[in-house]
Amino acid sequence: MYIDEGSNKEPRGLIIIFTGNGKGKTTAALGTALRAIGFNFKVLMIQFVKGKYPYGERTSAKRLAPNFEIVIKGRGYYKLPGDKIPEEEHKKAAQEGLALARERMHSGDYHLIILDEINIAVHTGLLQVEEVLEFLEEKPPSLHLILTGRDAHPKLIAKADMVTEMKEIKHPFKVGILAQKGIDF
Amino acid sequence: MYIDEGSNKEPRGLIIIFTGNGKGKTTAALGTALRAIGFNFKVLMIQFVKGKYPYGERTSAKRLAPNFEIVIKGRGYYKLPGDKIPEEEHKKAAQEGLALARERMHSGDYHLIILDEINIAVHTGLLQVEEVLEFLEEKPPSLHLILTGRDAHPKLIAKADMVTEMKEIKHPFKVGILAQKGIDF
Repeated sequence: MYIDEGSNKEPRGLIIIFTGNGKGKTTAALGTALRAIGFNFKVLMIQFVKGKYPYGERTSAKRLAPNFEIVIKGRGYYKLPGDKIPEEEHKKAAQEGLALARERMHSGDYHLIILDEINIAVHTGLLQVEEVLEFLEEKPPSLHLILTGRDAHPKLIAKADMVTEMKEIKHPFKVGILAQKGIDF
Repeated sequence: MYIDEGSNKEPRGLIIIFTGNGKGKTTAALGTALRAIGFNFKVLMIQFVKGKYPYGERTSAKRLAPNFEIVIKGRGYYKLPGDKIPEEEHKKAAQEGLALARERMHSGDYHLIILDEINIAVHTGLLQVEEVLEFLEEKPPSLHLILTGRDAHPKLIAKADMVTEMKEIKHPFKVGILAQKGIDF
């Protein structure tokens, strides 16, 4: 990235989407959080869809408190093999996640709020795209928002300022290498 | 990501490349570092090419010490507007970066080493692809390596286990929005 001298002007809060089938969506959001925290900004990540599995970021976030907080508002991947949670509970968790995001967004306390895997919540019908669009309409001008997850809805892409598709070129799971602790979770 | 029950087997160190013209390459590497640190792993990031600009991650890394260290081995983007550093100094910094990576790689102290923007160092001729390939050949089995930067060399892609192309779908710089502190740097 080339940084020009205008970088220190009035902040303009961006809506950023990390989508696609490749690795790096949640981790790019986490890395952006780390970058923001370097300027002593306050960051919230709400994890939609993801359940109680011990993701590494949940532990390290505590070392960055009070600048970083991760809140789990998922019940595990919906409709994936092994999912025994009723649809209503998945929907309730997603609704709670969006309500929490709205409340924190309007608190004025945050520089960056990350809605992790919200694209999947929309894609699988746990949230309606219209309610997420309404939420985006309410964004305060200086707040940055990051939405992650594959299959981002075209209406969300249209609304975003910055969109990166993480495109899988090679993935080791396909050659029989299992998910690695500290890398994949 | 769906995690199967084999996740806790013997770690298999991966060579991961984040490339492409979109946002999220360095940040995905930083996020992976954060994830690894959650398991109390030790991570080193060597920043090639990038100079002394106050990137947010350099400050927040200190809060994650001794698990995370970032070392600057760049003199600023080579051949970009404003670059007044002689080619020899750029090359010397890149060589020092690779030598440091090799030394630390063989120390056995690390779980993950990130070679940030090394793809650009190769693409612009500051490093030869053959010397990076030789380095990769020496990788201890359990160590993870991440190489970032656009224009990853095809020989490096061929050697990697996991490759994601961060593809730009939308970028706000193109509509006149400047780089934002805590997001872009």
